[in-house]
Amino acid sequence: MTNGSYSPDGVFYPFPTKEESQKEAEVLENITVEEKRKGREIVAVQGLGFVGCIMAAVIADAEDEDGNPYYFVHGVQRPSARSYWKIPVINEGKPPVESTDPDVPEIFRKTVVEKKTLHATWHEKAYELADIVVVDIQLDATKPSFGSAEIGYCDTGAFEAAIKQLGEHIKPDCLVLVETTVPPGTCKNIVKPILEEEFKKRGIDVKKNPPRIAHSYERVMPGANYVTSIRDFWRVYAGIDKEAGDRAEIFLKRVLNTRKYPLSRLGDTNASELAKTMENSFRATNIAFVYEWTLLAEEIGINLWEVINAIRVRPTHRNIMAPGLGVGGYCLTKDPVLAHWAYKDIFKLKRANNDSVLGHWKTWEKFKEHVGLPMTVESVNINDLMPLHTADLTREALGGNLAKQKVLILGASYLRDVGDTRHSPSEILWHALKERGALPSVHDPLVKVWPEIPSAKVEKDLWESMKGKDAIIFAVGHREYLGLPPEKVVEAVGKPCAIVDTQNILNDEEIKAYLKLGCEVKGVGKGHIRYLKEEVERSGRL
Amino acid sequence: MTNGSYSPDGVFYPFPTKEESQKEAEVLENITVEEKRKGREIVAVQGLGFVGCIMAAVIADAEDEDGNPYYFVHGVQRPSARSYWKIPVINEGKPPVESTDPDVPEIFRKTVVEKKTLHATWHEKAYELADIVVVDIQLDATKPSFGSAEIGYCDTGAFEAAIKQLGEHIKPDCLVLVETTVPPGTCKNIVKPILEEEFKKRGIDVKKNPPRIAHSYERVMPGANYVTSIRDFWRVYAGIDKEAGDRAEIFLKRVLNTRKYPLSRLGDTNASELAKTMENSFRATNIAFVYEWTLLAEEIGINLWEVINAIRVRPTHRNIMAPGLGVGGYCLTKDPVLAHWAYKDIFKLKRANNDSVLGHWKTWEKFKEHVGLPMTVESVNINDLMPLHTADLTREALGGNLAKQKVLILGASYLRDVGDTRHSPSEILWHALKERGALPSVHDPLVKVWPEIPSAKVEKDLWESMKGKDAIIFAVGHREYLGLPPEKVVEAVGKPCAIVDTQNILNDEEIKAYLKLGCEVKGVGKGHIRYLKEEVERSGRL
Repeated sequence: MTNGSYSPDGVFYPFPTKEESQKEAEVLENITVEEKRKGREIVAVQGLGFVGCIMAAVIADAEDEDGNPYYFVHGVQRPSARSYWKIPVINEGKPPVESTDPDVPEIFRKTVVEKKTLHATWHEKAYELADIVVVDIQLDATKPSFGSAEIGYCDTGAFEAAIKQLGEHIKPDCLVLVETTVPPGTCKNIVKPILEEEFKKRGIDVKKNPPRIAHSYERVMPGANYVTSIRDFWRVYAGIDKEAGDRAEIFLKRVLNTRKYPLSRLGDTNASELAKTMENSFRATNIAFVYEWTLLAEEIGINLWEVINAIRVRPTHRNIMAPGLGVGGYCLTKDPVLAHWAYKDIFKLKRANNDSVLGHWKTWEKFKEHVGLPMTVESVNINDLMPLHTADLTREALGGNLAKQKVLILGASYLRDVGDTRHSPSEILWHALKERGALPSVHDPLVKVWPEIPSAKVEKDLWESMKGKDAIIFAVGHREYLGLPPEKVVEAVGKPCAIVDTQNILNDEEIKAYLKLGCEVKGVGKGHIRYLKEEVERSGRL
Repeated sequence: MTNGSYSPDGVFYPFPTKEESQKEAEVLENITVEEKRKGREIVAVQGLGFVGCIMAAVIADAEDEDGNPYYFVHGVQRPSARSYWKIPVINEGKPPVESTDPDVPEIFRKTVVEKKTLHATWHEKAYELADIVVVDIQLDATKPSFGSAEIGYCDTGAFEAAIKQLGEHIKPDCLVLVETTVPPGTCKNIVKPILEEEFKKRGIDVKKNPPRIAHSYERVMPGANYVTSIRDFWRVYAGIDKEAGDRAEIFLKRVLNTRKYPLSRLGDTNASELAKTMENSFRATNIAFVYEWTLLAEEIGINLWEVINAIRVRPTHRNIMAPGLGVGGYCLTKDPVLAHWAYKDIFKLKRANNDSVLGHWKTWEKFKEHVGLPMTVESVNINDLMPLHTADLTREALGGNLAKQKVLILGASYLRDVGDTRHSPSEILWHALKERGALPSVHDPLVKVWPEIPSAKVEKDLWESMKGKDAIIFAVGHREYLGLPPEKVVEAVGKPCAIVDTQNILNDEEIKAYLKLGCEVKGVGKGHIRYLKEEVERSGRL
């Protein structure tokens, strides 16, 4: 058992002692008295992950027209080995996340050091003192077997425990604003009954004091505009009843830039929860749609990338997605599953009237098999399986056999120029290559360690990492991989090798240069390479 | 057998006699000599349908910087009972289509009467004289059974015959620009071999004189901006070889507003053909996606229309579609089938390497069953089946039985404020209601006769059409149906009736008014009506 927490910089922070906890409770109480006297409300943010930590700082930074802060914020994080270090780091005025956005360190300095409106703590006393709790704890979906999103489920245990903790501590009229992406129905069917039960245990009359619950979802993009993506962007929200909705509205209007990015209020929390999972499912479905056309394009010799660019010119089609290695990140891989799971497990729905919906002219078998959201869920499966296609292309480029072939994956993260590896398609590619007997290695300029595959050593020297490889896969479009001269790559490898481009990094001239150098080249959605090859062969004959 | 053709205005035009045909050939030849002397090239447009007739006029209207027309245009239409009348009508300077766009009559007047650069004819001699032929003949997809797009096919017989006719007549260096939406592969695998065969029969050396074939697709929207949607909008094109591509580029740049709406040139005709079917399939898939969420929303009491509006605020999600009655028109119902059919029948592809694409971690049954474009094709099925859901809602609103119920469908066209009934979802709804024993009737302010259901008398007096009905379905969002006062509707019906809203025509206040009047109300994607009902019941009790 650990007795403390290491920060990413290697500093060790021992867990608080009993005395320290007692002292912290007093500190929190004193702060509250002091801040209340200044006319400020107290907000507790539950969970200091990717969203929670920035949201806490944004709330602490909000001020009225005269420059007076609206809120004092307690950022609350449980004392776990993985995350406890965030508390002392924040209290030094430093961000608990690495980011390319200069606003991130600035907003922590400003709120902690200068304005003194943000304090991080592990102590649940913060919930007792809060007028508003913003829930930002994680809630994951599990896909029990690969490519089986239809039996995916949501383990709500930790989430329910966190809500129970709130029920044990919060004031009866505290607003609980759930910001976590949750399965539709969660606020009404999970959060509300738990809070009511805890209220009853505490002797609170829930008729007179119904828990005040609202839901609002962010659309965060960790990256160069991390803070802005939380504060300066459109929000959707809803209350479980009118009062909760009204209070959420006041809060969000104070904290976010809603003058420029107006709020959308929905009829109830079910609708707000559904909206979030639906908008991410829309994107996931869009990607899966493009994938099947990618396979067609490759088979009939088309460069789908230029087709997509031509279609995007049309304003109504501007968001059609591009081919690629696959889909990663925390949202598109999970949110469709949350919605599908809610369909079955929260609302206990079966498409019982299935035959009648689909008519007696044709019973559409698929709708019968799949209660819920068949197309949405299939999209997740298709997207999860996409990286296997790149493994196939690599095998083809290597003459049909991957066994003992040294394959370099360029990029471990799920997004270009970002170091985040959560659910990265490179992870699936790595396993697929291994299972087929290949010897994968990986390079990424932005990833220090690959938490999902700790055994994979992430190479740091690009040219060194190429040495002696049989195949190189451009898996992520990081800036560092653009415009590499083919001659230099082949020289670094030491021989002609297989080149697989999943990101349209190579233009036709570069592909021809690789071919002339004796390399075999394949590309996702780049069926036209066969014609480039013919061209190179013709010119070789002349 | 008919010996002529009736125009929609009831004027009879007898087919041309042999002597008239001989004379027409001379006329065409004389025009050509004359126009060539003016330095103009000759263009023949094959097929004067929704696209061809406007395209012919747009080409005839194109002029250089000094105001000199580039082209003289022969609009060519076979002498069929259905369409022959278009020839004399055009030659009088009048459009062969009804339109709300004032540019439509104006461009025919201008080109036929004023500039004298457009002449309509039935005579194939026009092809002999042309420097450029623009192919605008129809090519349909057939779905052999309802909801079975996966076995849909494209009967290319008439299209092939039309191309053969070109091969028999055109000059060897004539540019054949196919504008028809065709299955990917058509120019290379159908048009080219037919032209080559006919050329050979005529003793033309196809090595020296390969047929010049290009493809370019329009994005026409018949409606208030009909002409503009052809001329002032982005175009995609490609040649079967470099020369054909270059010639198509010169032509399109002269004819269209490409300075403001630049052209996208693709690598080959396969790519251009695929792009068109892909962009329409993208839209069809988007609609099918929304449909499954519509069913969920209804089941859990959500107003999906407000959710969609909230999602659309996000710029990357602005084009998410709305729920509704279903999908109609000529493109979204057919183009996905064309592409799927090409996959199987033009390219003879089977996803032979299916297992390997999808990996051995999970064999995904659906990908195995469906060679081709499973998601795309399923979308067409889902969309085709959508109107049955409205039939279900109507049955529910009527207490579970449709037998002998008088049901009024408001709207027969496939689009609001347009009179076009091709593949309209109201057609499917009509049949579904009939099969379930109901007595459907229909009203539409813009449709005179319903060609697909000639037995259906299209009512013209809205209030009269409501009299004595058991249910009224708002099927199309025509302007005339917006804002109808519930009291007036119930008065016109003569009793409380069932109201089914597929277009979000009714706001919550109107729904409550109908409920208070004793009507039962259902709405596609409007699951929240249950709460409105509770509200009305509560207020009734007070």
